[in-house]
Amino acid sequence: VRTLADIGERAAIRHIENILTKGKHDTGIGDDCAAIDLGKVYLLVTTDMMTRQTHIPPQMTPYQVGWFLVAINLSDLAAKGGAPLGLVLSLGLPRKTAEDFLLDLMKGADACATSFGTTIVGGDTKEDSELTLCGTAFGRVKKDEFMPRLGATPGDIVAVTGSLGKAGAGYFALKQNIERNLTRGLFEPVPRLKEGRILARQHCVTSSMDISDGLSSSLYQLQEVNHVGFEIDKRAIPLARGLTKVSKKNQEMDPYRVALHFGGDYELLVTMPAASFEKAQKAVQRTGTPLSNIGRVTRKKDILLMDGVQKTLLENKGYEHFKKHFFP
Amino acid sequence: VRTLADIGERAAIRHIENILTKGKHDTGIGDDCAAIDLGKVYLLVTTDMMTRQTHIPPQMTPYQVGWFLVAINLSDLAAKGGAPLGLVLSLGLPRKTAEDFLLDLMKGADACATSFGTTIVGGDTKEDSELTLCGTAFGRVKKDEFMPRLGATPGDIVAVTGSLGKAGAGYFALKQNIERNLTRGLFEPVPRLKEGRILARQHCVTSSMDISDGLSSSLYQLQEVNHVGFEIDKRAIPLARGLTKVSKKNQEMDPYRVALHFGGDYELLVTMPAASFEKAQKAVQRTGTPLSNIGRVTRKKDILLMDGVQKTLLENKGYEHFKKHFFP
Repeated sequence: VRTLADIGERAAIRHIENILTKGKHDTGIGDDCAAIDLGKVYLLVTTDMMTRQTHIPPQMTPYQVGWFLVAINLSDLAAKGGAPLGLVLSLGLPRKTAEDFLLDLMKGADACATSFGTTIVGGDTKEDSELTLCGTAFGRVKKDEFMPRLGATPGDIVAVTGSLGKAGAGYFALKQNIERNLTRGLFEPVPRLKEGRILARQHCVTSSMDISDGLSSSLYQLQEVNHVGFEIDKRAIPLARGLTKVSKKNQEMDPYRVALHFGGDYELLVTMPAASFEKAQKAVQRTGTPLSNIGRVTRKKDILLMDGVQKTLLENKGYEHFKKHFFP
Repeated sequence: VRTLADIGERAAIRHIENILTKGKHDTGIGDDCAAIDLGKVYLLVTTDMMTRQTHIPPQMTPYQVGWFLVAINLSDLAAKGGAPLGLVLSLGLPRKTAEDFLLDLMKGADACATSFGTTIVGGDTKEDSELTLCGTAFGRVKKDEFMPRLGATPGDIVAVTGSLGKAGAGYFALKQNIERNLTRGLFEPVPRLKEGRILARQHCVTSSMDISDGLSSSLYQLQEVNHVGFEIDKRAIPLARGLTKVSKKNQEMDPYRVALHFGGDYELLVTMPAASFEKAQKAVQRTGTPLSNIGRVTRKKDILLMDGVQKTLLENKGYEHFKKHFFP
């Protein structure tokens, strides 16, 4: 009998996509959120599951587990330009779970939701042999403000919010037992809801996704959907301050490699016509979050990393790669 | 350290309710669905988690597991008068899960969704040590058609859709290895979406819920919310044909006890003014589904079972009770 271990997650998801009946007016599986046509607006829905085994390292506090579960779902809404309407959480809990663990987890989840102007409106609890958490967020966006994955056009510029490598810095800080405060970048991601709404209102974004899987992996995903390539200016990548700190204490670490491949940074990756960038950048930066032009969309389907005059093919290794080491 | 096994699920949920910040215009946790104010309509959201250990007996086919996951979520929408907009499913899957198991599960889920005019619009898959399935359904209902749990008024009549004991009949058929076709009543419940919409459009329902936990347990839940009592006419309870069949082969089985307490029947329990019943009944029965008047809402807070001139206090044992035996 063929098992999931034999075929892998991607093949399993492709099979599922082939089985499922498609809704008439809805965007399909494969974007950050499902978008359901409600007339003038799309209802956005996204769901993420976390298990103790694969996603919850022991160093994470229960409060952080709850924060994380809510944040990763809100980040998917942010990438589509959505405003959140609420979340439901389903918790599979072992009988031996400490009461305080559950309460702290819910405090973290509530704190993240309310920090971004929304609430947890319901849920379910069930006994499970392993801690398994399922969050579902829903939101809405006007149809003409929806930012899909499909739409990147040769000539567009590529931009990211914030800085990259916060999660990677947190991971290496933890591993090397230095700069413990940096683990917040790893365990308490900040969904870019405000920035997403601002970008959506600019009506200039041609494609958008969050880069939780890593910048390189995200670029390869956009490449596949849009049949385009990218030229990324290595030196334009905004490195997180914590990453610079950690890499100074670790001569073998290339901070750009971490920023490109590590993943876990819940920033937005967008494309837009070059002429729109300056205005969009000003609008986003009013929130205190940078928006950096890091490259261009190309007709040629390669993804190139430009370092001065040097051009190299960008490796495609994202979160999936690191996960093996990080979450044993 | 106090664990969840020490405090129990109900206490855990109460604690969670106290922690969570409430949305301004939303109905709280405790109803079948969360209802989010979108102006003229409520967005309804409900989530249910199933685990191998507690909810998926080995006799259930993978197709039935998928059907069940979708059906129980759609039933919650039905109980509020909602029309479904879609579902997302998150699947926690052991590595050794057979590919065919996953595909059959998704076929069953898709078949249930499309049977009721909706689709599965997205989801997530993660590795998990035990099969853990999380479904979230969302729908909408005009505000003046929303059927809440709160509103039952002394003098109202109590009605149920369909017949009771289908799931119980399936369970005993399985256990005694007779009438195997009856297990469909247990493993392939039919959400009463059409009937829920018809009742909602009558604008007469004062309170509504699905009776998945069993009729007795559901009545006790309505009692607690509404501070009322009930008089239920035992002989008016519509027994499922399969239940009558099974009980004929089992002299010790009281079919009324099964219909009252077993649970697993995804029928709707509603209250409405007596004057509205006849018209509502006619409207519902046009779909082929009976609507039966089984009793009255009383000011006195007892729940009485009337059997001719005999009155007894109805026992409060629902699904929770049977679960222990059924899902070891």
